[in-house]
Amino acid sequence: MKVGIYGYGNLGRGIECAIKNNNDMELVAVFTRRDPKSVKIQTETAKVYPAGEAEKFQGKIDVMIICGGSATDLPEQTPRLAKLFNVIDSFDTHARIPEHFAKVNEAAAKNGNIALISAGWDPGMFSLNRLYANSILPNGKDYTFWGKGVSQGHSDAIRRVKGVKNGKQYTIPVESALNAVRNGENPELTTREKHTRECFVVAEDGADKAAIEKEIKEMPNYFSDYDTTVHFISEEELNTKHSGIPHGGFVFRTGSTGWNNEHKHVIEYRLQLDSNPEFTASVIVAYARAINRLHNEGITGCKTVFDIAPAYLSPLSGDELRAHML
Amino acid sequence: MKVGIYGYGNLGRGIECAIKNNNDMELVAVFTRRDPKSVKIQTETAKVYPAGEAEKFQGKIDVMIICGGSATDLPEQTPRLAKLFNVIDSFDTHARIPEHFAKVNEAAAKNGNIALISAGWDPGMFSLNRLYANSILPNGKDYTFWGKGVSQGHSDAIRRVKGVKNGKQYTIPVESALNAVRNGENPELTTREKHTRECFVVAEDGADKAAIEKEIKEMPNYFSDYDTTVHFISEEELNTKHSGIPHGGFVFRTGSTGWNNEHKHVIEYRLQLDSNPEFTASVIVAYARAINRLHNEGITGCKTVFDIAPAYLSPLSGDELRAHML
Repeated sequence: MKVGIYGYGNLGRGIECAIKNNNDMELVAVFTRRDPKSVKIQTETAKVYPAGEAEKFQGKIDVMIICGGSATDLPEQTPRLAKLFNVIDSFDTHARIPEHFAKVNEAAAKNGNIALISAGWDPGMFSLNRLYANSILPNGKDYTFWGKGVSQGHSDAIRRVKGVKNGKQYTIPVESALNAVRNGENPELTTREKHTRECFVVAEDGADKAAIEKEIKEMPNYFSDYDTTVHFISEEELNTKHSGIPHGGFVFRTGSTGWNNEHKHVIEYRLQLDSNPEFTASVIVAYARAINRLHNEGITGCKTVFDIAPAYLSPLSGDELRAHML
Repeated sequence: MKVGIYGYGNLGRGIECAIKNNNDMELVAVFTRRDPKSVKIQTETAKVYPAGEAEKFQGKIDVMIICGGSATDLPEQTPRLAKLFNVIDSFDTHARIPEHFAKVNEAAAKNGNIALISAGWDPGMFSLNRLYANSILPNGKDYTFWGKGVSQGHSDAIRRVKGVKNGKQYTIPVESALNAVRNGENPELTTREKHTRECFVVAEDGADKAAIEKEIKEMPNYFSDYDTTVHFISEEELNTKHSGIPHGGFVFRTGSTGWNNEHKHVIEYRLQLDSNPEFTASVIVAYARAINRLHNEGITGCKTVFDIAPAYLSPLSGDELRAHML
């Protein structure tokens, strides 16, 4: 199948790697809003084109993978490109998913295309695990923990503080809270009890470090509800020790069965990811395979991971899956 | 939806509880090979019938849940009943799944019914996790661990030993092996390195305990490849401390992404179950909902968990799922 990448940031580069790791896929083109000459890709057989030329590739690309940001890019890009291509995105503003779904669904369905929104791990694999576990254990309780990993939004928030040159924030689940859930204690947990936040900050020369630390720790929405630690380090240390983009987390459902709910069960799904964008990209690429197949069966309109039978994700046949993976 | 239970052992009783916990389901009838008068069920609105009368219920049951054993019951029962009803079973002889699938598929498809085989947790939820994780991380390694939990087959094997009155066997994953996998070390593990086996044995009066212990520990296929511990206890202790049927386990996939596979990832799915049959039943009942819906859409033939889009498992609508669970 022929794939296009629309937007070449961290996620777009991850998609390129994931395509390389899947033999049934070929990268045809990368589209960028930057000057194409300034964008170096790793795939020798593919080329970089201006974003505005994407529509010339109609009929030459089986699935266009849209790698823009959720805040402003995807709400515009996905509906627009769904008129031209089968598309997939990783839209992750949970509260706005219904609205995004409706727009993309209309664009895709009217033009005979298929689209899949919100692929990745949260939304994505975490959502799937919530759905499966809720369907199996209707009497129960859900818990989601994130980390240990880099939160892009919180790192950005640190970098906006006066006197901060650079910074990175790790979200860390509280071990005792994890264990209470894992042991089936069904704890009621406050925001503060679930996660801590650890910040590595490079201050500008002569900056007031005490003021920076105070401003970070008291920042509403981002830090004030958490136990936050701030470490001041050199730019060099930041670059050598904190240049990665690891992430991960846990989805739990604890629930009961039996005539009188006398038996307890714990379902746990955990991810430990060295590279958040590359793992997200790997999920997206598997779903790109799925929607390409579904489109070949005549399916159109917008889908989510909830709507895709798992067998469509695998390059193996039904016979092979039943024989080796069931 | 109206549900029938065919076979009323541990699994059948678990199905009855799971139906009670799902408001959109109603138990219509339980079918048994025993004398129906000797079978007491808990649902006041349902009745017990002889297995031979099942066919009279054609058209009155949306899904028949078949609760026989995989060795001899299901290979005969599922194809036969798939001619009359939409059916679901928990066939768990992995090696014979393709053969079972073919027979059930033919019976169901010819008669306009839908069937789903091998629902539960392994096969079932563990299989799904293997499939998702393999599709996401094509470069990687799979690990499955079982336990801590009661193995019915191994407990039966103990009870066949001369001088043994009763017994129970627990399969226990080796903690250091789990941790090596979880840490991304990609270990090569022998059978002995993955699990230990712990046996609680009630000896007959005057039995040779040393001989029993030796026979258990040296039993080929069941125990000889494992580090096995044998404890002799009283019947009373067995009944008070070991009457449950807990189980569970872990499915891992460790894999890499990146242009040079430079980033590692660990996907872990874990179950801790107080009651193996009740959890299995809870999975089956969710899939019974799914196949009933698919049948209402005109789908026929045999399916597995790989073929079912997750949204079909939930009583919630697509809108609700996208708004609250994605």
